Amino acid sequence: MNLKYLLSFLALVAVSSVEAAEETVKVSEEMFTINNLWILLGAILVFSMHPGFALVETGLCRAKNSVNILAKNMITVAIGLLTYSIIGFSLMYPGESWTLGKVLGFSGFGISSPEGISGAIAYNGGKYGYWTDFIFQGMFAATCVTIVSGAVAERIKFGAYLIFAVIYASLAYTIIGSWGWGGGWLSSIGFYDLAGSTFVHSVGGWAALMGAMLLGPRIGKYVNGHSKAMPGSNLGFATLGVFLLWFGWFGFNGASVFSADPVMVAYVFTTTSLSAAAGLVAAMLASWAVQKKPDLSMMLNGCLAGLVGITAGADCVSIPSSCIIGIVSGVVVVFSVYFFDRIRIDDPVGALSVHLVCGVWGTLAVGIFSPDHALLPQVIGVVAVAAASLSSSFIIFYAIKKTIGLRVSKNEELKGLDISEHAMEAYNGFQIFINE
Amino acid sequence: MNLKYLLSFLALVAVSSVEAAEETVKVSEEMFTINNLWILLGAILVFSMHPGFALVETGLCRAKNSVNILAKNMITVAIGLLTYSIIGFSLMYPGESWTLGKVLGFSGFGISSPEGISGAIAYNGGKYGYWTDFIFQGMFAATCVTIVSGAVAERIKFGAYLIFAVIYASLAYTIIGSWGWGGGWLSSIGFYDLAGSTFVHSVGGWAALMGAMLLGPRIGKYVNGHSKAMPGSNLGFATLGVFLLWFGWFGFNGASVFSADPVMVAYVFTTTSLSAAAGLVAAMLASWAVQKKPDLSMMLNGCLAGLVGITAGADCVSIPSSCIIGIVSGVVVVFSVYFFDRIRIDDPVGALSVHLVCGVWGTLAVGIFSPDHALLPQVIGVVAVAAASLSSSFIIFYAIKKTIGLRVSKNEELKGLDISEHAMEAYNGFQIFINE
Amino acid sequence: MNLKYLLSFLALVAVSSVEAAEETVKVSEEMFTINNLWILLGAILVFSMHPGFALVETGLCRAKNSVNILAKNMITVAIGLLTYSIIGFSLMYPGESWTLGKVLGFSGFGISSPEGISGAIAYNGGKYGYWTDFIFQGMFAATCVTIVSGAVAERIKFGAYLIFAVIYASLAYTIIGSWGWGGGWLSSIGFYDLAGSTFVHSVGGWAALMGAMLLGPRIGKYVNGHSKAMPGSNLGFATLGVFLLWFGWFGFNGASVFSADPVMVAYVFTTTSLSAAAGLVAAMLASWAVQKKPDLSMMLNGCLAGLVGITAGADCVSIPSSCIIGIVSGVVVVFSVYFFDRIRIDDPVGALSVHLVCGVWGTLAVGIFSPDHALLPQVIGVVAVAAASLSSSFIIFYAIKKTIGLRVSKNEELKGLDISEHAMEAYNGFQIFINE
Repeated sequence: MNLKYLLSFLALVAVSSVEAAEETVKVSEEMFTINNLWILLGAILVFSMHPGFALVETGLCRAKNSVNILAKNMITVAIGLLTYSIIGFSLMYPGESWTLGKVLGFSGFGISSPEGISGAIAYNGGKYGYWTDFIFQGMFAATCVTIVSGAVAERIKFGAYLIFAVIYASLAYTIIGSWGWGGGWLSSIGFYDLAGSTFVHSVGGWAALMGAMLLGPRIGKYVNGHSKAMPGSNLGFATLGVFLLWFGWFGFNGASVFSADPVMVAYVFTTTSLSAAAGLVAAMLASWAVQKKPDLSMMLNGCLAGLVGITAGADCVSIPSSCIIGIVSGVVVVFSVYFFDRIRIDDPVGALSVHLVCGVWGTLAVGIFSPDHALLPQVIGVVAVAAASLSSSFIIFYAIKKTIGLRVSKNEELKGLDISEHAMEAYNGFQIFINE
Repeated sequence: MNLKYLLSFLALVAVSSVEAAEETVKVSEEMFTINNLWILLGAILVFSMHPGFALVETGLCRAKNSVNILAKNMITVAIGLLTYSIIGFSLMYPGESWTLGKVLGFSGFGISSPEGISGAIAYNGGKYGYWTDFIFQGMFAATCVTIVSGAVAERIKFGAYLIFAVIYASLAYTIIGSWGWGGGWLSSIGFYDLAGSTFVHSVGGWAALMGAMLLGPRIGKYVNGHSKAMPGSNLGFATLGVFLLWFGWFGFNGASVFSADPVMVAYVFTTTSLSAAAGLVAAMLASWAVQKKPDLSMMLNGCLAGLVGITAGADCVSIPSSCIIGIVSGVVVVFSVYFFDRIRIDDPVGALSVHLVCGVWGTLAVGIFSPDHALLPQVIGVVAVAAASLSSSFIIFYAIKKTIGLRVSKNEELKGLDISEHAMEAYNGFQIFINE
Repeated sequence: MNLKYLLSFLALVAVSSVEAAEETVKVSEEMFTINNLWILLGAILVFSMHPGFALVETGLCRAKNSVNILAKNMITVAIGLLTYSIIGFSLMYPGESWTLGKVLGFSGFGISSPEGISGAIAYNGGKYGYWTDFIFQGMFAATCVTIVSGAVAERIKFGAYLIFAVIYASLAYTIIGSWGWGGGWLSSIGFYDLAGSTFVHSVGGWAALMGAMLLGPRIGKYVNGHSKAMPGSNLGFATLGVFLLWFGWFGFNGASVFSADPVMVAYVFTTTSLSAAAGLVAAMLASWAVQKKPDLSMMLNGCLAGLVGITAGADCVSIPSSCIIGIVSGVVVVFSVYFFDRIRIDDPVGALSVHLVCGVWGTLAVGIFSPDHALLPQVIGVVAVAAASLSSSFIIFYAIKKTIGLRVSKNEELKGLDISEHAMEAYNGFQIFINE
């Protein structure tokens, strides 16, 4: 294998100098095309997480708010892609255009490939093309805001959500992400996050927490000191959604290796799947122990928790460690759901427990389980991202609250957001009880 | 294998110059395999558009017709593949077997790879293999007829639809398509359609118009000069369907590049996604402005409109142009839905507005926005395809109407096609109001 | 680029003999990466069959058991992957560690790649990496048990199913599979099964038969000598499930070629799709002839039957043979459903007819239609696997029956397993009739 490669370079020596060859040929055209194809497939896979998010949220909420949830999730993809093409990509990957000591950078409005076809290929050291990079990163941009959607569901105004989504996706997600993935200050101190336990899941999770707090609980959720269960309307959708998210996660984590490396991509597939499986089993057993019955919605959240937990370190922890990360995620997510319910923060789909709590856990787990990374930079990253996400989401949500308002009226909420915000029903013709 | 390769190169050196070798060996074995793999993945992605179509149509129609719609969409895939293997592939890609001045060609019944393994690879200038070509094109064949399915839904006889689907898929789609993609007369005059704004979407769309006109509107749709809304029964299915269609469109447009070219495939992904996103936003705003509420079904159709609109020129328009194409598609689809309702053509899912109107728009947009293509050939193509599609679909539908009949009885339509045509219910056990 | 290639080969000639080169260089690094990427994509595709199974089973059963079915299908994936990582992979692919004359082998607990990065690549003759092999085979492991899930639905205890799934997935599926795919005695006698008509579908199918017999029929299914239809609650889910299964089958069969071979993978795609299409059409016509209406659930099972039937020989039968295999599968599955109903074996989703009957048929079809394989080894394989699967599943189910019990109480069954086993509803808020 290597002999052939070596000899091919020897042949190159015959016609050119070694240095020049080294300069010009990084990988073969074929290898470039393979690597690039895998990142493109990764973009498609990450895209397929969006129907996953949409179905999980729809399925775990009440039927009277389904249209609203579906509309939010669809438009979020469009917002993510469009803002990323206008401003986001340049904020997140500023290249050399840093200011403020690697805290903020901006390389200009719009997207355009450097120097034609060859520029698009030489881009990024010859690992993958410019447009490939854009579409893969653009698919990530929308996922962050979608996490917020779940925690504020069933009571936020559609217009308020849109404004939040546009600003948070274009400014907060991108600038915070640039600190790690764009070559900013967090990457300089050794912080590591492979595919986004922090930069996607907890950036979304902290904003979800802020949104849920500023909105307050749904009407009827906490009455006379008791928490009332508000069961999901379509567990088939919710389960299919989790399957779609796992499906997409092969690209989310696997293409974040940024090549089709046969060992590393397969290893990431393995750790990712084992953590998801372990989280699923652990959450089933934990809910069975506490509630005396295996709870399907806890199993679903346990699976997602395992996926979020392994996302930061899928390429750098051992196989047994990936199982431990998954088990801890699955147990933690169950008790976290109880915890937020106890402190009266109403999160209809468990987004805080899955994405925020397990996003933080997964980020710290890199420092704990990976021999190549230290715990301190991970802690610093978690704290810095928390501060930035909480403060920026507070400013946006608070400004909306003081202007057009965050929450629908009591009457609209009782009637359901489908009728009040969209003048439609999700399940026309079906008899549904909406007296809650 | 490597020995063969090695010897082939040695032989080449012995008998010819480097330039001559350049002539013979188009791409390396590796590059061939990569290109071929991407087309194969494209076939899988296009396949996944079929559940997309099925769910959009089921979700936007009434529950009492769901089984019928699901059955139509499933069997359409089978019809597409089987007729394509028997006659379609040879009609659409006749190779040298042209008659009538590149209007009709036929290279024989059945499918068989030329000259064994090496023939399958040398096929088509060494770009991809014979079977790869068949399965990718075969997946396209079914999509065209599925478009018709939506416009004639909730009132066409199941048997009538089957007969139409078999004939239109095997004769009309293929012969019309051969004019452009098979090397026929439209390609000779410079007409350009990358992935089928014309050859798939408007070929299906014109037949959908003919079917909807010959069938007439659903009972109760237009009463006393008023149009009655007949809302969809499952907006969750409809939304998931649109996500699946977008997902599949990465292969529909992206693999129509016919190689894994790292720049071009990624560029097509980008223009396709931006047009879809722009269409979604534009349709949301347009419906919000007119109806005072953001309408989810309009958003869904806006997204599909953006996808249909960019399909002809995804590889040859600029990034800003792709956004403009999407915005126009999204606005046009909303007003087109109102228009068809005004002129009393009943199209339950908006198939005419999405596939026909935006298919035509996307085809013309190539002539408007692409520096490499002129408008006149695009206009000629649109008109010629309209004439051919309308006349052939008229003949088929009219013949069916005069023999076995096109439409179910009034009683069957009121009861719903699930019971009357299939003796089944889609949602057994659920209470559903079917008094419309 | 071709110049570089040419020179690399010239260099090889200069320093080594052709024979030595053949020895050392199996495939290029690029080709290895392409082949490996396709197996990885195959793993993702096989994964996507799990939501397919979940939706088919949920959709074809009654609404009151949906949560239970979804929970079973989700946890089955986790069980499959985790047991495969602990013991299954080593039992199924024991390498040199055979005992008992190639009937049982075990290469040790856990998974670990041989000799670091280069070991992972050299593994298995340089065709694909170690982790790639694990994740692809691990996804298969879960599919076998999922088949059982369908036949025992609506009456088995959740805990009983879990215990069965763990033992059958880790011991029975793996040891039986090792006889063919792991290099055991069945492969020595010339038995051929490309992707699992026998080793997945009938291994699951025989256990499904045993489970259905030991459990007995659902309450109310057979009363006074009459069989009562118990229609599915969500045909939209069932249809989407079949589409997902077909989608995943491109990887199930296509990646079982174990390379990205441009001719062979595309050929397998073609035979697989034509058999599925033929099975769909055949089952529609058969059900139409017998029941006087085209039955959607029969069409769905006909499509799956065609897929199961072609799975053993997708790479080694001709195109017309693949259509015949599909047609026979589609007709057989319809009459098999009637047959099992006649002999009072209650199989809510038709799993026995699809997976067992067509699994056996597909295995025999290799011996009938493929010029490269004989019928006798196929018959021996079918009989041996039947004996092993029936006896092992009998032991497991019988032990569970005599200890914790297999079946829920009459009261729990009538109330539905969602409430009794999980204290949840799948469609909260919807009015559903559950008086059956």
